Amino acid sequence: MGKLDFWYEFGSTYSYLTAMRIETLAAEAGVDVRWRPFLLGPIFRAQGMDDSPFNIYPVKGAYMWRDMERQAARLGVPFRAPISFPQNGLLAARVAISCGDADWVRAFSKGVYQAEFVDCLSISDVAVISNVLQKCGQDADTVLEQASSDQVKSSLRAVTDEASAAGIFGAPSFTTKDGELFWGNDRLKEALEWAQKIA
Amino acid sequence: MGKLDFWYEFGSTYSYLTAMRIETLAAEAGVDVRWRPFLLGPIFRAQGMDDSPFNIYPVKGAYMWRDMERQAARLGVPFRAPISFPQNGLLAARVAISCGDADWVRAFSKGVYQAEFVDCLSISDVAVISNVLQKCGQDADTVLEQASSDQVKSSLRAVTDEASAAGIFGAPSFTTKDGELFWGNDRLKEALEWAQKIA
Repeated sequence: MGKLDFWYEFGSTYSYLTAMRIETLAAEAGVDVRWRPFLLGPIFRAQGMDDSPFNIYPVKGAYMWRDMERQAARLGVPFRAPISFPQNGLLAARVAISCGDADWVRAFSKGVYQAEFVDCLSISDVAVISNVLQKCGQDADTVLEQASSDQVKSSLRAVTDEASAAGIFGAPSFTTKDGELFWGNDRLKEALEWAQKIA
Repeated sequence: MGKLDFWYEFGSTYSYLTAMRIETLAAEAGVDVRWRPFLLGPIFRAQGMDDSPFNIYPVKGAYMWRDMERQAARLGVPFRAPISFPQNGLLAARVAISCGDADWVRAFSKGVYQAEFVDCLSISDVAVISNVLQKCGQDADTVLEQASSDQVKSSLRAVTDEASAAGIFGAPSFTTKDGELFWGNDRLKEALEWAQKIA
């Protein structure tokens, strides 16, 4: 069976489009996907950017919002502009990292994206994240306490360093076990095909 | 019949992938394409960039070269890394603008891309451009003289201003008569479909 790492950032619009579709497409392609939440902030800062490129370059940002509307409609994924951009995905990323490889990381991640890009909520709000956890059948207080541990904080830093070492500069990204990197929701199917081909 | 404007810059790698394929795909889609050569340099400078983003952000640049190899192989388009990047496409753009809407602008543009991305030549070299013109059945001296006229220089500036006014920030780009903008070789088919739908 093919294997693919799916790297996503909770504040990223195009990561959302991938997260809502990758399970179905991966099942069709016979590829086992590992969900890898990480932070883009440190990666942007290492390149000299202290904000999303879509904010630093507003002409490109304006295009992105229109493209997201069109892509969401095309792919059948609901989409509303978030209340701010980019939202701070640190809390959500810590929770997702604290799950380890538990299956519910997928439901949780999709729940966070739904809160952000459909329900127009703030994903840095503890109450919003608690609610998503409860919908996943988790005990929110226990998970949130674990997510704030030094071990989880350090794991998230290590994952983000691993993303950087893999040449990742944006999200979503995909990496294969033979070292190929694919960037963007537009490369999802191609990345799955590659993973299947080398299986 | 649908109508689509195809905006391209001679130094742009992904514009090359579109230029070599758009005629066939447009014929299949029943769309009439107007070729719009322009300069990205002034548009990048207006956003505070004095070089290609692929050079300003080298991690993204490294990805682009690998992605180009993979995309070219996937699309069946030959590709070799150019002798420098980005090449200065000013001379080629002036020649292409001086053609007006003559049919040979397409053969000329593809010839320039072939020189740049397959034959590894310098497209700012007058001898290289002359050779491409001759292969298109044009009198190179006559065309080059016309291309250096003030009228052509001013037309190229006007076209680049028009690109900027349309919200264009990269190449290739596509615009439709109802004001939609699509960016990137990855959006070629979608842009053609849109143009056909509103025809």
